[in-house]
Amino acid sequence: MAPARTIEVPSTGFESRLAASDLTWDKPTCGMAPGYLQANLIVLPSKSAKDFEILCARNPVPCPLLAKSASSGDFNNFISCVPGVSDEKIAAGIDIRTDAPRYNIYRDGVLVEEKIASVEKYWESDHVALLIGRSYSFENALAAADLTPPHVLNDRNVTMYRTNIPLCAAGGFIGGKYVVSMRMYKASEVEKVRDITRAYVTTHGEPIAWGWDGMRDIGIKSLERFDWGDAPVLADGQAVVQSEEEGKPDGYVPVFWGCGVTPQEAVMKAKTPGIVIGHAPGHMVVLDVKEEDVLRK
Amino acid sequence: MAPARTIEVPSTGFESRLAASDLTWDKPTCGMAPGYLQANLIVLPSKSAKDFEILCARNPVPCPLLAKSASSGDFNNFISCVPGVSDEKIAAGIDIRTDAPRYNIYRDGVLVEEKIASVEKYWESDHVALLIGRSYSFENALAAADLTPPHVLNDRNVTMYRTNIPLCAAGGFIGGKYVVSMRMYKASEVEKVRDITRAYVTTHGEPIAWGWDGMRDIGIKSLERFDWGDAPVLADGQAVVQSEEEGKPDGYVPVFWGCGVTPQEAVMKAKTPGIVIGHAPGHMVVLDVKEEDVLRK
Repeated sequence: MAPARTIEVPSTGFESRLAASDLTWDKPTCGMAPGYLQANLIVLPSKSAKDFEILCARNPVPCPLLAKSASSGDFNNFISCVPGVSDEKIAAGIDIRTDAPRYNIYRDGVLVEEKIASVEKYWESDHVALLIGRSYSFENALAAADLTPPHVLNDRNVTMYRTNIPLCAAGGFIGGKYVVSMRMYKASEVEKVRDITRAYVTTHGEPIAWGWDGMRDIGIKSLERFDWGDAPVLADGQAVVQSEEEGKPDGYVPVFWGCGVTPQEAVMKAKTPGIVIGHAPGHMVVLDVKEEDVLRK
Repeated sequence: MAPARTIEVPSTGFESRLAASDLTWDKPTCGMAPGYLQANLIVLPSKSAKDFEILCARNPVPCPLLAKSASSGDFNNFISCVPGVSDEKIAAGIDIRTDAPRYNIYRDGVLVEEKIASVEKYWESDHVALLIGRSYSFENALAAADLTPPHVLNDRNVTMYRTNIPLCAAGGFIGGKYVVSMRMYKASEVEKVRDITRAYVTTHGEPIAWGWDGMRDIGIKSLERFDWGDAPVLADGQAVVQSEEEGKPDGYVPVFWGCGVTPQEAVMKAKTPGIVIGHAPGHMVVLDVKEEDVLRK
């Protein structure tokens, strides 16, 4: 048993991974190491990983690939996929088999184990780990501009929806659709929200749709019928009732971003043969890369 | 007047640009300099060019950005936007104001001049030129595998369609949709066609949809109602009659790729203020980059 440690909330990517690895941190990573990128993890057999990389290259808004295993089977060394970020800057000393707080395991597309602490016994010499960007970073930027997303103000999960927007196919990954996250803003705030999030190109960037017509264009009929996360709220914590909001001059409107659930859905849909490993929802891999390292100048 | 020259069909990018520049070549560039990349040209005021670059980064399948002016107003020097291709390799000694055979000019989103030989008098110190990939290269690869596209076999233009697939918005470029090019293949050939074109990531890559259901999913109701190019044909030159083809076991099915008309449409839709310059359709900029330089390994 490791001795009790004094770290409460790790303040760097390195400390976060250490805490996950020695089991002093087994909770969601929300709030850990502010300013450091947190990544979605997907581990795939090498043939599927190659197709998946192309899926990311073709659909960078919902699937922004940050880094990948340096070679098949390598759980320690990563290659950066972000221009201007060196390989060394991704995650020094990482062991991807232990450094997320919790993992899920899929066999032939079916979930077989949930929230396990390490995946050493599932790791194969043909496995390739892929790290994908997520939207925490632009939420901090919005907060800094007094546009904190309503779900953050109310300590809830962001609301997520399936859309009708097709992913560009890549090898075995066919028929996937964009998943989006949604945040409510006043109609008059939308341009500012777009401007602030535009530079976050490796973490979904600016919104892909907004407003009530925009919502219907991407195949979402009702905000109240969401697919993941918590029910949508306004900044004051009030539940969103679409019929009350819609049509108000400068009322609240939904704003939609590409979402990191998209790649996970694509993998599930593809029923990838063999063992696939993902982080358990919310239990991300915290990197050494800082938000300002990946901003588009 | 330049003396008559002996070049018939230029065999390199450099020769192609020289022939366009000294007016010995004023025709479409189809068939010029086999193996060299040909690019779509869009010249925009710098503020719009910045948004347009993000549009390309977010929608790389229909809008694969190859290179851009080294700085505002620079018509001679280009920065490569393709990983692994150096700036020097783009187009040595280019003058983008003269080196496409023909240009079109738009003012505030309206076409004001067509098929002019040079654009020196329209060039502004705030202009940025952007070069975007096109699908010639993967057509050569298909031909090499005995899968020559039907329109090439029959010396016609490829057939193009508007779709319902939204582009991810970027700054002033909002509400754009994918344009696709279409080539008919036997159902049994589709996987081979996908495999061959997959590596051509900077020139639209593998198809985004195929088959009759795939066609309807992207909002195309009838192959006979096309938006650009020539009417679709089969390999033997027969016109495509959808009602006769649809449902045949191993009959011909439509296969759709992202298309370089997409960025032009996005620019038109945005009604970009000021002077915008494009190549005249078919009259492309031929680069020094060769097809094998941009293949995904």
